[in-house]
Amino acid sequence: MMKLDCRDPGFAAAFESLLDSARETTARVDAAVADIIGEVRREGDAALLRLTARFDGWQPAGAAALRVTAEEIEAATAGVEPRLLAALDLAAGRIERFHAAQMPRDLEVPDPAGLTLGMRWTALDAVGLYVPGGKAAYPSSVLMNALPARVAGVGRIAMVVPTPGGQLNPLVLAAAKRAGVTEVYRIGGAQAVAALAWGTASIAPVDRIVGPGNAYVAEAKRQVFGRVGIDSIAGPSEVVILADASNDPRHIAVDLLAQAEHDESAQAILITDDAGFGAAVAAAVEAELATLPRGAIAGESWRRHGAVILVPDWEAAYALTNRLAPEHLQLMLPDPRAAMARVRHAGAAFLGRFCPEAIGDYVAGPNHVLPTGRTARFASGLSVFDFLKRTTWVEASEAGLKAVGPAAVALAEAEGLQAHGRSVALRLG
Amino acid sequence: MMKLDCRDPGFAAAFESLLDSARETTARVDAAVADIIGEVRREGDAALLRLTARFDGWQPAGAAALRVTAEEIEAATAGVEPRLLAALDLAAGRIERFHAAQMPRDLEVPDPAGLTLGMRWTALDAVGLYVPGGKAAYPSSVLMNALPARVAGVGRIAMVVPTPGGQLNPLVLAAAKRAGVTEVYRIGGAQAVAALAWGTASIAPVDRIVGPGNAYVAEAKRQVFGRVGIDSIAGPSEVVILADASNDPRHIAVDLLAQAEHDESAQAILITDDAGFGAAVAAAVEAELATLPRGAIAGESWRRHGAVILVPDWEAAYALTNRLAPEHLQLMLPDPRAAMARVRHAGAAFLGRFCPEAIGDYVAGPNHVLPTGRTARFASGLSVFDFLKRTTWVEASEAGLKAVGPAAVALAEAEGLQAHGRSVALRLG
Repeated sequence: MMKLDCRDPGFAAAFESLLDSARETTARVDAAVADIIGEVRREGDAALLRLTARFDGWQPAGAAALRVTAEEIEAATAGVEPRLLAALDLAAGRIERFHAAQMPRDLEVPDPAGLTLGMRWTALDAVGLYVPGGKAAYPSSVLMNALPARVAGVGRIAMVVPTPGGQLNPLVLAAAKRAGVTEVYRIGGAQAVAALAWGTASIAPVDRIVGPGNAYVAEAKRQVFGRVGIDSIAGPSEVVILADASNDPRHIAVDLLAQAEHDESAQAILITDDAGFGAAVAAAVEAELATLPRGAIAGESWRRHGAVILVPDWEAAYALTNRLAPEHLQLMLPDPRAAMARVRHAGAAFLGRFCPEAIGDYVAGPNHVLPTGRTARFASGLSVFDFLKRTTWVEASEAGLKAVGPAAVALAEAEGLQAHGRSVALRLG
Repeated sequence: MMKLDCRDPGFAAAFESLLDSARETTARVDAAVADIIGEVRREGDAALLRLTARFDGWQPAGAAALRVTAEEIEAATAGVEPRLLAALDLAAGRIERFHAAQMPRDLEVPDPAGLTLGMRWTALDAVGLYVPGGKAAYPSSVLMNALPARVAGVGRIAMVVPTPGGQLNPLVLAAAKRAGVTEVYRIGGAQAVAALAWGTASIAPVDRIVGPGNAYVAEAKRQVFGRVGIDSIAGPSEVVILADASNDPRHIAVDLLAQAEHDESAQAILITDDAGFGAAVAAAVEAELATLPRGAIAGESWRRHGAVILVPDWEAAYALTNRLAPEHLQLMLPDPRAAMARVRHAGAAFLGRFCPEAIGDYVAGPNHVLPTGRTARFASGLSVFDFLKRTTWVEASEAGLKAVGPAAVALAEAEGLQAHGRSVALRLG
């Protein structure tokens, strides 16, 4: 863990190194992924069967066996504890309501020249949702990825999930059912991304692929980009917490560790104006670490990437936060809205002492798929906008064309595009 | 030019080949671009000076010479014909008004559980605008790329434009001035993209880079993606025109050629319900080609990629249009709004016989930077949304946390993330 004080002479350099530290190294798998995509494009289902046997360690009986049946989804859901199903349903309802509030309205703008201009939003026809297998299969991520697509009005939501040894997490299937996923396939890796992008005899292609995955999945998404849309490639998770001494140090310590327990590359940073409070939080982190099941992971993250930064005042904290542009931002201050007004760059913010980031991971309503690694400077969390696209339109009468056409002709001719100019001029008569 | 009839037995296969035809081959320049980016990251301005001498054929006197001064911009603008400045100003005003109408509103959603949820839109701090040099330097593209950023509220708009031999197009500088570009640099290629992404001593880094370029520019944008945001990689332009026999065949022929004159890879497709009209348009295309300055280019595009498709009824035309998902769509039909309601996938639509696509290129108001190559299935034209990002937020009181917290704890424990659960449970007391 790095202790920094804004007033130290070495602060600027130390903060720069915090900003620039790459917390993750990505394996180069370009060639292997290109081969896998090529096999799926050429051979379709046959390649999926072969690659699933090779990478996931089970041999599907045939292409039909790749699809999880409605009966299997029902049976899995029926086996989930009712209190977990209720929690899932509460979360899903809240996520749906928030994302429904995001839905934009179409524009129709009459204009002084007599044209009518418009912009129409429409949903994508079909999307693919990648869900990692094994321990990283989080039901909450199924809700967060699928529900915005559903709310946007996407017709087909095809989920792929690798099942090493053929096993599926029942709560993931229950989440898929609740979120309105229309198809579930037992495939993963680059081959699943290729199947979604190009289609096979048994899997229809989609228009966009979202959801996190390992280095092979990320590279496969890069390679199919253009053929289909993709979401951004998620990096390790991070939180910045602004907290004053009115907070319970243990609360803040556990908030930091909630971030750190994701994986060793996660980053948790406390910014405070009180050195004693900072020290108390750091001590509480050590105490909590000893009692956490994922203490080894969280401890490694905290030691390698954690930081406590002391600032002389909150304006300094806001300036540092804008440079960090964190994925998650907790504003544990007496007037968190005033703080929020001073911060321009953050994926998601959590306001007030009773608002730990973890409620945003599950039940608050806004999405938990958020821009990492300082990309909140230009990127946003997942939303209905990821599953909608816009068509602009122009309607012109003869009078409207007469009003604006001559300027178009002048500019077209200045650009040397005579057919452009002529297409307008001919209609001006 | 391909003549297709929906009712022919070979139609499905021929249409598939039209959909899948790659109209452009992209050179592999990955390694060369990686080298250039590395030089700029390591050496900054010194690398820019060396690479500009090597690729653009002029030797800047020093780093300061890379920036176009305010005086140079004024002088260039003063030299532009007043009627062209007036046309530029009319276009800019209309583009500003339409993009201002796109600006979204922030959300604040109180919810039954006692939390408050919100979503805030903020502008990016700084964007880079790549403008191709030489003949492809279009003033209209400067307006279309810079004005949405300006309307969104971006503070810094840094434009880069290569100046082979040191020459600059005065109308491009006039457009930059009118569009509120804050900085103009005489650099281009992968080195300009690298400078915008990483910054040098004389050029501050930006958060997102937009604008078209050659294969080196496109690959450089791919390589800096993640460090900064980028727009989509534009492919060759295309139009689909739905027209019945009530149109003047010559008008439609020139509309097709306005697309074809862009370059040999452009694609122009007419879909009609009248074989005689289709033949008349095809004949008019040949007659017009003979009289166009860019007839050689347009003719090559038309012969290689053009098509006239005969349909039995307009429903068939809408279905084909949805599969083509064209960048530009002209609906030259008696009830173009009814047609628009049946088409789901298109970048921009032009409604009615007095609405040739060329007015959208210059003066209508909506953006002319649009998704190509069937990507309108999932992508949209440039807009203020490209220069804004969202921060979601949650505000919780003790009562609000009590209402939703237990569900979060249950889900966190089911996912094996104990610190997540504990961060909520501790505050529930």
